[in-house]
Amino acid sequence: MKKIYIYDTTLRDGAQSEGISFTVKDKIRISQKLDELSVDFIEGGWPGANPKDNEFFSQARKALKLKNAKLVAFGSTRRAASSANKDAILQNLLKAETGYITIFGKSWDLHVKEVFKVSPKENLEMIEDSVRFLKKHGKKVFFDAEHFFDGYNENPRYALETLEAAVSGGAEVIILCDTNGGAVTSTIFEVVEDVAAKIGVPLGIHCHNDSDMAVANSVAAIEAGCVQVQGTFNGYGERCGNANLVSILPTLKFKLRLNCLSQFAFKELTEASRYIADIANVKQQDSQAYVGKSAFSHKAGVHINAMLKNARTYEHIAPEEVGNKRRMLISELSGKSSVIMKAEEFGLKFDGKSDKAKEILEHVQDLENKGYQFELAEASLILLMKKAAKLFKKYFEMDEFRVMVEKRHAAPVVSEATVKLKIGKENVHTVSLGDGPVHAMDQALRKALIKYYPALNKMHLSDFRVRVLDEKAGTAGKVRVLIQSQDEIDSWWTVGVSENIIEASWIALRDSIEYKFMKDESGNKK
Amino acid sequence: MKKIYIYDTTLRDGAQSEGISFTVKDKIRISQKLDELSVDFIEGGWPGANPKDNEFFSQARKALKLKNAKLVAFGSTRRAASSANKDAILQNLLKAETGYITIFGKSWDLHVKEVFKVSPKENLEMIEDSVRFLKKHGKKVFFDAEHFFDGYNENPRYALETLEAAVSGGAEVIILCDTNGGAVTSTIFEVVEDVAAKIGVPLGIHCHNDSDMAVANSVAAIEAGCVQVQGTFNGYGERCGNANLVSILPTLKFKLRLNCLSQFAFKELTEASRYIADIANVKQQDSQAYVGKSAFSHKAGVHINAMLKNARTYEHIAPEEVGNKRRMLISELSGKSSVIMKAEEFGLKFDGKSDKAKEILEHVQDLENKGYQFELAEASLILLMKKAAKLFKKYFEMDEFRVMVEKRHAAPVVSEATVKLKIGKENVHTVSLGDGPVHAMDQALRKALIKYYPALNKMHLSDFRVRVLDEKAGTAGKVRVLIQSQDEIDSWWTVGVSENIIEASWIALRDSIEYKFMKDESGNKK
Repeated sequence: MKKIYIYDTTLRDGAQSEGISFTVKDKIRISQKLDELSVDFIEGGWPGANPKDNEFFSQARKALKLKNAKLVAFGSTRRAASSANKDAILQNLLKAETGYITIFGKSWDLHVKEVFKVSPKENLEMIEDSVRFLKKHGKKVFFDAEHFFDGYNENPRYALETLEAAVSGGAEVIILCDTNGGAVTSTIFEVVEDVAAKIGVPLGIHCHNDSDMAVANSVAAIEAGCVQVQGTFNGYGERCGNANLVSILPTLKFKLRLNCLSQFAFKELTEASRYIADIANVKQQDSQAYVGKSAFSHKAGVHINAMLKNARTYEHIAPEEVGNKRRMLISELSGKSSVIMKAEEFGLKFDGKSDKAKEILEHVQDLENKGYQFELAEASLILLMKKAAKLFKKYFEMDEFRVMVEKRHAAPVVSEATVKLKIGKENVHTVSLGDGPVHAMDQALRKALIKYYPALNKMHLSDFRVRVLDEKAGTAGKVRVLIQSQDEIDSWWTVGVSENIIEASWIALRDSIEYKFMKDESGNKK
Repeated sequence: MKKIYIYDTTLRDGAQSEGISFTVKDKIRISQKLDELSVDFIEGGWPGANPKDNEFFSQARKALKLKNAKLVAFGSTRRAASSANKDAILQNLLKAETGYITIFGKSWDLHVKEVFKVSPKENLEMIEDSVRFLKKHGKKVFFDAEHFFDGYNENPRYALETLEAAVSGGAEVIILCDTNGGAVTSTIFEVVEDVAAKIGVPLGIHCHNDSDMAVANSVAAIEAGCVQVQGTFNGYGERCGNANLVSILPTLKFKLRLNCLSQFAFKELTEASRYIADIANVKQQDSQAYVGKSAFSHKAGVHINAMLKNARTYEHIAPEEVGNKRRMLISELSGKSSVIMKAEEFGLKFDGKSDKAKEILEHVQDLENKGYQFELAEASLILLMKKAAKLFKKYFEMDEFRVMVEKRHAAPVVSEATVKLKIGKENVHTVSLGDGPVHAMDQALRKALIKYYPALNKMHLSDFRVRVLDEKAGTAGKVRVLIQSQDEIDSWWTVGVSENIIEASWIALRDSIEYKFMKDESGNKK
């Protein structure tokens, strides 16, 4: 089976999405997930372009242990009227200390003349010099031929010369880019076939989605001979986004029978897509191909009837191949086995046919219908299962609180929370100020609990995310709060859902503390 | 120029979308809009399948005056072991009184055997009989060959026989359907070419988006010889949706130079896409190809610099061709030139070298350092610029509020907000409950302002997003709140940043109302 190399640029091109801004920690987390999926290359950012990207490569060197993927630094060719040896762009690329570097250069003479304002010849030198310089420093170099398809359309001779310059410099792979996303599939196929016959190094493809064809264009390019495909998770990217790897991958694997990612990875694809959407703080599209919530949902009566006879009648692949599930919108029949599997992961054993397993399944489904989501918030899911299995010891009861936020003229805003807990037989009533209402609540809770559970000192809240579920309802809509907590050993996410953001936070806070107690007591450190 | 016929099935296949349910009035409104755009065929529904579809055709006969489009009734071939003359399905189709009727039949022998459970021969008779019957009653008949590509893959001989049966019966156009949405573009192209050489009537294409390739597949089918393309507005449809006409149309027109819709229609495409999204009560995707809010938005500094030299460098078509517009996003990645351009977009003129421009830039950068983000929240940015330019009239002062959220035992959580405003010379002090603290605050504000600004009745909050900026600080970290507001004309985002989520919401709420007042007063309706 022919191997296709997967090159992910979620962290660089994906971060160009309107409304997406990854922190360094987000980027580390996404890298780990991509590595688990056995993606071949992870483009981490443009060292030197901004402090955040520098910080990422520095953190990555210290903290990121990649088992499958290679980290890649991205940048451009050297500046005009400069020399490769002294060029700041190239120097910064070396400082990232990655084994692979991708640089882009101009393949469209329009850009050479109007943007760079250099001669066509100098542009060729910039490409060749830059690749050779990096290669000389022991790097493997990928060359992104920016605007290749537009350039090839207007001046094919020159566009090819830019590729030849990169080959002369020593590029490992030449990536043909449809930077403006305007190319039609048939053109992509023809041009790739043409170039493959003329250029002696392996080719890659990098598409944008401005014509809503980036996925098909990438697949066509592979059929025409490309061996590397670049894209982003969930298709994030500037304007209309980049080619969506989550759509491309199963098509390569299950339709074209090509070798990419591990078999294991495909079963994790739905979960990974949602995980990365949560980190990006963007809702996963229900209709997203393969992994969306509606991707295998059947509504029409005639379809459901046929499905009951043979699932192939209305499904192009089996949903479990990509870790998704079938949903009949009249009745929910699926999901039990995955709940059982999850329980086993946490060391809980259920007989799949028992009433208990069924009850838990129904409870999970009920909560999911209310807007809960457990892909990221596994700590809340464990608690829920332990509670259902009567394996959960109640540490405290917390059912009263009041939060007040007040602003008077120019004075700073004041947030105050009171909480009333029952701990064992004692009633504990505390009050605290905080930097905001959730922080005040957290502080009041700690004040109440710390005497009984000093381990709370070792735990702090490290992330807090809010998503409105029913967008159309605006501020009256349901809200999902995700809270990440951390102690000296690990970190965990919990979730709360309510129409009231304070109550949703309260639920997630309660879970985060209960989980901490539970894991400390069981000695289960992970 | 070759003419391509546009067949819209938003009202029928689009209504299969999870979460979409059109009223009869919605369907009338959408039909009128499609007709204005000069779509050729509008599939109205399946008469007899449900009362709503019957009611639609009845209303359409009375109220719908179509200038360009033909209304089409949709249904299936007759039932097995029935005769066309007596078949209820076909009778109901006639009752819709449309000039055109589309019926679907089975082209995949798997369906014939396992779903219909009839002999292959009887299925062919069902197709031929049904088409002939409708034709005899003066109808023009389109035949949807359901699952054609799957059928052709497994039993090409039989799949072709089903088409021949429809041709014998007198079908005007044969539509090849990728019902499960699993076909790859190269297969679609080859099969259409093959069939076109063998079947003597015009062909159409009907694709679903399960592999994220429905648009490219439809375009490829047209390149291979189809003359009718079926799809839905915004790609609505079951599972992952149908082929998106909004993406297909500009590609046919501007890339393949084919004749479809009027020139006028393309200028209206962005507005039409949003209009239909509003009726469907689904948010238009910002990243939607051609018509999305981000489709021509530029964020990266290098892109913006190039765009200022020549727009073709990063745009595949001119946004105004499809009624969309270019946006330069202000973000950490951009500089002074984009701030000045942005100001000009809003009708503010600054000399690029003036102190005022420099001051605004510094102010924007300062706020960005504090966590503000203006790429989405353009309304807040306009307010900021107008205030800096001393062109902003203060409508009211709002500097006191108190929000309280309280939970007592099992009782539902209560949220109450009080606000104190100065409106002109009056002090107004109001209180309201709400579904959560921000909703309560919104309600109290409205209570205070509505007497002075009744236009507030026309405005509502339509989205609400929260992001914690400094993760390490957890619940004590800074919070960014984005609020989307909407009136009957347009929608806008505002932003607030604070360590306190309530205060951040308060700032974004204030901006949203100030922007509404400002735009109403200036008569700036877009």
